[in-house]
Amino acid sequence: MTDIKRFDTDHRMSQAVVHGNTVYLAGQCGTAHAPIQTQTREALSKIDHHLATVGTDKAQLLSVTIWLSSIADYDAVNAVWDAWVAPGTAPARSCGEVQIGGEGYNIEIICTAALS
Amino acid sequence: MTDIKRFDTDHRMSQAVVHGNTVYLAGQCGTAHAPIQTQTREALSKIDHHLATVGTDKAQLLSVTIWLSSIADYDAVNAVWDAWVAPGTAPARSCGEVQIGGEGYNIEIICTAALS
Amino acid sequence: MTDIKRFDTDHRMSQAVVHGNTVYLAGQCGTAHAPIQTQTREALSKIDHHLATVGTDKAQLLSVTIWLSSIADYDAVNAVWDAWVAPGTAPARSCGEVQIGGEGYNIEIICTAALS
Repeated sequence: MTDIKRFDTDHRMSQAVVHGNTVYLAGQCGTAHAPIQTQTREALSKIDHHLATVGTDKAQLLSVTIWLSSIADYDAVNAVWDAWVAPGTAPARSCGEVQIGGEGYNIEIICTAALS
Repeated sequence: MTDIKRFDTDHRMSQAVVHGNTVYLAGQCGTAHAPIQTQTREALSKIDHHLATVGTDKAQLLSVTIWLSSIADYDAVNAVWDAWVAPGTAPARSCGEVQIGGEGYNIEIICTAALS
Repeated sequence: MTDIKRFDTDHRMSQAVVHGNTVYLAGQCGTAHAPIQTQTREALSKIDHHLATVGTDKAQLLSVTIWLSSIADYDAVNAVWDAWVAPGTAPARSCGEVQIGGEGYNIEIICTAALS
């Protein structure tokens, strides 16, 4: 049996799943209906939190996919993202327009990271 | 050469690709134009099938991305999903609205799992 | 500290990130406003380039996600894709309609590959 460690698990999903030295996070969102900058900061904060829980941090990010409910938010989100990334450690990234489950959610961020 | 094992491979894609102790599945769909609950159950059945083929099962899922052609199906899909997940083993998950190639396909599910 | 190698890194993203014997590529696009076949060929060329940079190639692809700004381009993109895939090595794949950041970009391709 492979060793899998799950964190913040309910009947639907885990917020973080560790397999070997890789961690997969559930899509992270901010507060519904908040301004996009706020939602972005909150989603990134949750990522920081979940990465810390499994013993790693944002400098160990491998791959990130960002879903925006409106691609018009692209520049605003990038400004918050660019300031958050640990210099020299930016992950592979993609960012596209995808409607998100639940009303008022305008950003969801999906990450894979290495354990430090 | 890294050891990669592919399953159900044609000129366009493989339904499952094993690398080390991780398996990546192609996006799985149900029958076009069927009710969303049926399409969801069928897609999950195909996931069960492909995971069994490579020697693992749904309790070893790591990360899942669900695409819905209409986010209005979110609750209906979740009801089927929640009943399918092996208790205590829910993967990291994200679910958003993405149009799918081919007419009448309303859900596509993309998975990464560990080998058991 | 896990050994992570990054390639073509700026303040926002890396074009390729190697962790263990897996490489994650940033979403690859072609020239904005070019015909979809051209954009597809260019994106696939960039994938060839980045995979070569890290010492692997398209026959080692594990998982690919394709975003199209219009799912109506599905058949045109598949024709280019099918001709590009190394016979017998097709990865797990998914393809859906997602609007892409920046005007005139009609395809973005996100890959994970094994190191050879």
